[in-house]
Amino acid sequence: MFVLCMTCNTRMGIVSRYSDLLFKAGGNILEINQYNETDSGLFFMRIAFVLTDESKQETLTSELTELATRLEARWTLHDQTQPQRVLLMVSKFDHCLIDLLYRWRIGELKMQPVAIVSNHPRESLGAVDLYGIPFHHLRVTPTTKPQQEARLLDLIQSTGTQLTVLARYMQVLSDEMSTHLQGQCINIHHSFLPGFKGARPYLQAWKRGVKLIGATAHYVTPDLDEGPIIEQDVERINHADTEETLIRKGRDVERRVLARAVRYHLQGRVILNGARTVVFPD
Amino acid sequence: MFVLCMTCNTRMGIVSRYSDLLFKAGGNILEINQYNETDSGLFFMRIAFVLTDESKQETLTSELTELATRLEARWTLHDQTQPQRVLLMVSKFDHCLIDLLYRWRIGELKMQPVAIVSNHPRESLGAVDLYGIPFHHLRVTPTTKPQQEARLLDLIQSTGTQLTVLARYMQVLSDEMSTHLQGQCINIHHSFLPGFKGARPYLQAWKRGVKLIGATAHYVTPDLDEGPIIEQDVERINHADTEETLIRKGRDVERRVLARAVRYHLQGRVILNGARTVVFPD
Amino acid sequence: MFVLCMTCNTRMGIVSRYSDLLFKAGGNILEINQYNETDSGLFFMRIAFVLTDESKQETLTSELTELATRLEARWTLHDQTQPQRVLLMVSKFDHCLIDLLYRWRIGELKMQPVAIVSNHPRESLGAVDLYGIPFHHLRVTPTTKPQQEARLLDLIQSTGTQLTVLARYMQVLSDEMSTHLQGQCINIHHSFLPGFKGARPYLQAWKRGVKLIGATAHYVTPDLDEGPIIEQDVERINHADTEETLIRKGRDVERRVLARAVRYHLQGRVILNGARTVVFPD
Amino acid sequence: MFVLCMTCNTRMGIVSRYSDLLFKAGGNILEINQYNETDSGLFFMRIAFVLTDESKQETLTSELTELATRLEARWTLHDQTQPQRVLLMVSKFDHCLIDLLYRWRIGELKMQPVAIVSNHPRESLGAVDLYGIPFHHLRVTPTTKPQQEARLLDLIQSTGTQLTVLARYMQVLSDEMSTHLQGQCINIHHSFLPGFKGARPYLQAWKRGVKLIGATAHYVTPDLDEGPIIEQDVERINHADTEETLIRKGRDVERRVLARAVRYHLQGRVILNGARTVVFPD
Repeated sequence: MFVLCMTCNTRMGIVSRYSDLLFKAGGNILEINQYNETDSGLFFMRIAFVLTDESKQETLTSELTELATRLEARWTLHDQTQPQRVLLMVSKFDHCLIDLLYRWRIGELKMQPVAIVSNHPRESLGAVDLYGIPFHHLRVTPTTKPQQEARLLDLIQSTGTQLTVLARYMQVLSDEMSTHLQGQCINIHHSFLPGFKGARPYLQAWKRGVKLIGATAHYVTPDLDEGPIIEQDVERINHADTEETLIRKGRDVERRVLARAVRYHLQGRVILNGARTVVFPD
Repeated sequence: MFVLCMTCNTRMGIVSRYSDLLFKAGGNILEINQYNETDSGLFFMRIAFVLTDESKQETLTSELTELATRLEARWTLHDQTQPQRVLLMVSKFDHCLIDLLYRWRIGELKMQPVAIVSNHPRESLGAVDLYGIPFHHLRVTPTTKPQQEARLLDLIQSTGTQLTVLARYMQVLSDEMSTHLQGQCINIHHSFLPGFKGARPYLQAWKRGVKLIGATAHYVTPDLDEGPIIEQDVERINHADTEETLIRKGRDVERRVLARAVRYHLQGRVILNGARTVVFPD
Repeated sequence: MFVLCMTCNTRMGIVSRYSDLLFKAGGNILEINQYNETDSGLFFMRIAFVLTDESKQETLTSELTELATRLEARWTLHDQTQPQRVLLMVSKFDHCLIDLLYRWRIGELKMQPVAIVSNHPRESLGAVDLYGIPFHHLRVTPTTKPQQEARLLDLIQSTGTQLTVLARYMQVLSDEMSTHLQGQCINIHHSFLPGFKGARPYLQAWKRGVKLIGATAHYVTPDLDEGPIIEQDVERINHADTEETLIRKGRDVERRVLARAVRYHLQGRVILNGARTVVFPD
Repeated sequence: MFVLCMTCNTRMGIVSRYSDLLFKAGGNILEINQYNETDSGLFFMRIAFVLTDESKQETLTSELTELATRLEARWTLHDQTQPQRVLLMVSKFDHCLIDLLYRWRIGELKMQPVAIVSNHPRESLGAVDLYGIPFHHLRVTPTTKPQQEARLLDLIQSTGTQLTVLARYMQVLSDEMSTHLQGQCINIHHSFLPGFKGARPYLQAWKRGVKLIGATAHYVTPDLDEGPIIEQDVERINHADTEETLIRKGRDVERRVLARAVRYHLQGRVILNGARTVVFPD
């Protein structure tokens, strides 16, 4: 199955041109989603299709390129049978990492984990089975951050990483790194953004006395906790919760939200729209 | 805005043919949803579009007819600027009726209520403002049911009713009536079907000790409580709830579920698929 | 049924003393909730009970007063058979007002609405049935605010108002007024606080691209949008929502959250704890 | 911390007697929950407390025994510092097992897993880390069921098992076994009971076209899928889901519901009430 994502300025006949082109190339559309944003005049579309004759892929690609040029469209074409190469980053809390690995192992997340990176040594993850995925301890201090990020970048490039997931990685990436990974790096923030940005959001939530806590999966940008949101969800809490029980309740919503966001990304269901996202859920 | 709904056997190029036809007729697609059911080989599609030149509507209709014939498709075309004519039925509990009327009055539900029918007299609704919508008291007993339904049918026909909503109407429609209104009559059942069919579902739920109660909006069929489900939702309850408090908690979920189902229907977002439905939510 | 709410510094034997006192006075405990806050050392308790011999109420009150003095406790005792006197305030959006009136009319909310106050004339509410509740148009401009609030305060006092509900009343109360009504005035804010404080929260939410919107019912304090939160809830939204559809989706969550908060307050289920609340839900 | 659970016929002064007794024994109440069931005249109470002087535990126990005798109460007293001994049973799907083990490992579930039992060999769980918990393969066929259950019972007794958890164990226990383990054996059923009892509930749900699927954690009884429900929850689905995607979505709700039910049980928050449960959530 192939997934085509595209965005351009709205005009008449876009759906017609693409469906026509795919039909003639022997493409069978399985799912089509589109969205016209009235304010900005932008058009977004995702088409999942199979090719009855795989040998036509090259011709198809060149035709899609031509059409995109004519429409001045930004576009991507992913072959979903090729799992994306994913680099996972973690600090001490491992619930998101373990959940992603579990979903990958049973075939729920179609990805190929190429590396696990932590700012803590392997021992800090305890007996967790990493299924042979290479583990890299990239220590970081305020002064060594540039060097650490250089090593991280090397690793991303040498492994052919297509998506980086910050699975409760508690370090802030530099502006350069964030810019470099734009749209290819997902973070899970343990609050319902924009509430409780910054450190210890559960303590902040406790102090404010909210009745629900949440989690937010978003693309990383240089603007901390302001990146385009992919997915959010909440859990009900009450007055008797403490920072500790909030952390416990939060684990469930964090891992659920991150797993959904990663799945949406891997399936090409997320298209960037400036500081926001267009998400076509399954 | 027009909404086209269609279903036929899956084959290649359906999206292409429709989008092409609409493009050539000057139709601008605002929203397109489709679904291929692998098991049955059925294809379902909803297209919302505007016509840049309204004078072309007749030509368009004849072209759509021709295409549907070629594809052996079942289809409908609704002009969304023409609110559907809706008949509301109620017994003693008025929370769903009042909620629907409120949503209609503030413009949230695009419909034209043509009649309110009850098996109880007008007084049983108390001081409720019916905004001048004609009220009909159609008394019913086991022996007079055929006559009552004949009067109901007259009313449906004379008012040009397109959708009948059983807003906590506590009488079972006859098989003939149910068959006649197939796909055009929505009921709200106060349980999470298929659990707790039949009478007093809240009492049944209390006895079984469930931890959530629900409501189900479905199309009416001769097979009681087995009609195609349009929408469902639940509310959390606990051991301390009684039948009375379940009824209170249930009111909220009932009116919410029914209002959603009616909106989906009015916007052409529901397509029947045998005993099930395809729903393209907004 | 009586509801006793109390709070004091934690010490051993508080439950014992109260349950003992009530037992000896012929009080039958129907529901008891308590909460020890470890950090602050504060203790909170709510006891719902019936008196087998109503003539003992006076003796009971004096004993409770004595015990509270000994424990240096803050406390209230409400006779739940006496509905609280409630003043409702509204501006142009009437969904919360109408919902509260409906719940009152069918007996779900035990209260006595003594007045409806708006900064707009009666006509702005259209044909809404106010069930004979006196309506007061208290016009307000930046310069006449002190006078308007003086009239409001007169009304609160002359009607014996015990609770003021800002049911989408779009004016900010002055610091003096907010302080005066502390713990006796509930507002519904149409966002999931602390996100999107201030004006047009739905537009703010749309701009930020969140995936859920919410509503917050809180006690009014001089610190705008920072009052103790009583209840919150959320609704799922998506990229295709506009400010207009967010407002529609928001209406449902606003009225649900406000109704719950008012019910909790009327049933003595909310105890203030500084900038937060202790809520014992049913 | 100790947790006292008790149930008896309602009468005046129960709370008073228990809180008095605990006060005099130097018990400091941390949490008290009670529930009067009006219909049955039954009273249920859970008290969590600490003893300031641990040496008084014996005296306390004898006083509690005496009081219970006087009230004809059924009661239990658990020392929460002693983790309960838990036996986990599984077949091929391991998501619930792995989730429970994870929550145990990070200290979220206070239990001591004494054995993992499967009707499939160890290999069927793949590389899953069992943290040294003894694994027992108890093969079962229709003819060998009595023998298998005899071995299971031996294991339960020899390990001092206090709670048995069927974490997607796909065999039905015999009536004798179910009766023997009454109130000490929790099962997770992958549907929102009472809907879709029996085999392949997700396929049943798909065929019925429901819009939400669920999971139910309940105590095992001889009456299949009719045991007292401890916890339930749901996930939204849509027409495009297949049995396969329902199974994926179901995994999340199954593990969440089972983990909650096990936690409630371990914390003494569940009291049996005939075919239903009283649950005092945290």
